[in-house]
Amino acid sequence: MELQQGAASMMEASLSSLCTPAMLVDVDKVKRNAQRMIERCRDLGVQLRPHMKTHKTLECADILTSGSRRCVVVSTLAEASFYADHGFDDILYAYSLPFDKVERCAALSERLDLFQVLLDHPHALDQLKKRPLKDGRLWHVWLKLDCGNGRAGVLHSEPEALRLALAIGGAAGVELTGVYAHCGNTYNCRGVEQIQAVAKETTDLTLQFMKKLKAAGITCKSSIGSTPSCSHPVKDMAQLSEVHPGNYGFYDVQQSVIGSCSLEDVAVRVLTRVIGHCPHRNQLLIDCGWTGLSLDGAGKLPTGYAVVEGHPDLKLLSMTQEHGRLEPISGPLDYSKYPLGSLLQLIPYHSCATAAMHPVYFVHSEGRLLGKWTPTRGW
Amino acid sequence: MELQQGAASMMEASLSSLCTPAMLVDVDKVKRNAQRMIERCRDLGVQLRPHMKTHKTLECADILTSGSRRCVVVSTLAEASFYADHGFDDILYAYSLPFDKVERCAALSERLDLFQVLLDHPHALDQLKKRPLKDGRLWHVWLKLDCGNGRAGVLHSEPEALRLALAIGGAAGVELTGVYAHCGNTYNCRGVEQIQAVAKETTDLTLQFMKKLKAAGITCKSSIGSTPSCSHPVKDMAQLSEVHPGNYGFYDVQQSVIGSCSLEDVAVRVLTRVIGHCPHRNQLLIDCGWTGLSLDGAGKLPTGYAVVEGHPDLKLLSMTQEHGRLEPISGPLDYSKYPLGSLLQLIPYHSCATAAMHPVYFVHSEGRLLGKWTPTRGW
Repeated sequence: MELQQGAASMMEASLSSLCTPAMLVDVDKVKRNAQRMIERCRDLGVQLRPHMKTHKTLECADILTSGSRRCVVVSTLAEASFYADHGFDDILYAYSLPFDKVERCAALSERLDLFQVLLDHPHALDQLKKRPLKDGRLWHVWLKLDCGNGRAGVLHSEPEALRLALAIGGAAGVELTGVYAHCGNTYNCRGVEQIQAVAKETTDLTLQFMKKLKAAGITCKSSIGSTPSCSHPVKDMAQLSEVHPGNYGFYDVQQSVIGSCSLEDVAVRVLTRVIGHCPHRNQLLIDCGWTGLSLDGAGKLPTGYAVVEGHPDLKLLSMTQEHGRLEPISGPLDYSKYPLGSLLQLIPYHSCATAAMHPVYFVHSEGRLLGKWTPTRGW
Repeated sequence: MELQQGAASMMEASLSSLCTPAMLVDVDKVKRNAQRMIERCRDLGVQLRPHMKTHKTLECADILTSGSRRCVVVSTLAEASFYADHGFDDILYAYSLPFDKVERCAALSERLDLFQVLLDHPHALDQLKKRPLKDGRLWHVWLKLDCGNGRAGVLHSEPEALRLALAIGGAAGVELTGVYAHCGNTYNCRGVEQIQAVAKETTDLTLQFMKKLKAAGITCKSSIGSTPSCSHPVKDMAQLSEVHPGNYGFYDVQQSVIGSCSLEDVAVRVLTRVIGHCPHRNQLLIDCGWTGLSLDGAGKLPTGYAVVEGHPDLKLLSMTQEHGRLEPISGPLDYSKYPLGSLLQLIPYHSCATAAMHPVYFVHSEGRLLGKWTPTRGW
């Protein structure tokens, strides 16, 4: 882990020295989550291509790739450029090719050993054909398949899916690298059985498509992913080339509710302080509003927008820009337990959304501050 | 407006050259909104102290302060330091004194001509007394009064409010600068009549408290604020010293629903592109997810998370990290109107929340790009 400015003095410091709100990362848990995913993929015999979109930092990427700095997936070109600038390669930009970013994709393709794009429409293929790469390089293209997730991708059941794959494979200057499906529909699951049913369905549909491709004389890679499915893989996933989970380095309350992990596995917190007592409303105020946590998870948990670590009786009722209102789930609040200035830790509902609110994460091991991680932002 | 790196080439460019999603600021509308607030306050005879929390940029602050760089209010110490570093002074940090930030507040108090803090509890006053300022400087302290907003502040009706004001006024090294009330409860209003009822109630309660203070031999400033109340001030507000609205430079859909402004007055947009056609779901995909818009406004509008400019028939149904799903409010979607790669503009529900997601804002006048504004972030 790269220790940044101020880290030397932080080595001596504890969490209580931090100004709040502060995003905390328990590096031991990240390493454990990473190691488990690495072992799971090794046991399955598939290549792990971790997604960078949750953490967007070099240090976490190093942990998730075991220091190889190879074979990652990103959600924005800002991430792609950030990782490319820091020696990463074999980067897949897994976002239906945005027409405004073709030139930036071309520059990355011409600069890296292996930069890969993704598309789901013939018009996107036309954009690539109009911009041949220099030095005889090929556009490395994944076809995005929708196997039931209902977001991007060409529907697996549509004849145009095969037509588009063949068109990519047959285009000059372009290579069909693989077929990519995101099973984000695992986020509707509760428990391992439901997760594995979706994982199996996505795998089956992807493999059926691979067979159709093979029958048409085309072989290429296949990849499915989502943190729930890769946390509880089914054995058929061994027939895929790659998987691409992302959230698992941090995990979050949502993943524990889905059944991807236990609450113990969640590696991130928002450290916050009590800044107000409001006995006339039976509430506490904390210095974490939506700028520190995000509004993700509204209405999803009995404890409100987050879980307050060690205080399962507290509910984060509402937030404004810099304030959060906590109240007991039932009964009167015992204010003596929460003096003004005292610290609480919020376990985020959705760590991707919470991480996106913080310009820096404070990294610790067993409460001892080790340094800071600085994520990239923007597009 | 300070033109930053890349601005020279942007002078020639139009909005369609921008990579999306991109936060757009119509500088003419910002100037008009600012001018109207300046005139409103001049007519009332109260000092305008604009809040920086929505935009957090130097350039917008210059517009809102008419270039004086004096008399502003901030929501975080990061903002306070950012503005102090760039020649701003007379800064009020209007956030119930966080105990972890006393030393940083002291440093700002010792460095600026006039840095002001706010508190609502005797323990916070104790913190200040424990840290006397150098060179005989005084802590300039506003008392935060809750006049019905139900967030921070000592309740106007509680005897401890007066006791705390007297304690501040009587403490060595500390000056009671003013009494501050935020009427955030105007956000529940619909229409000018309701807004003005809350504005009048907050003003009346604040002025009653000032009378009690005067009877106890103390005179100091008074300030109330919120964008709705200051967009439609009541005449009694003329008896206050200051007002402190913040959102009005940008405004947003929420303010138009409340009745603070018309939709025409909203100065910000998120520029986004169509990246997917999903006829089997009667939906479009756009390249703006919650990283580009925020999740604020869920369930509040018939058009979903935003208003799509020029397309009142479209609803922003849902968002994931980098995708938005648009569908017609009724009937089948006419895809010919929305080719892949075509641009749409989203009018944000809550511009404070949307601005917080963007590392840079693109500033234009009548569609001609003028430059970029870079906000500060963090705490």
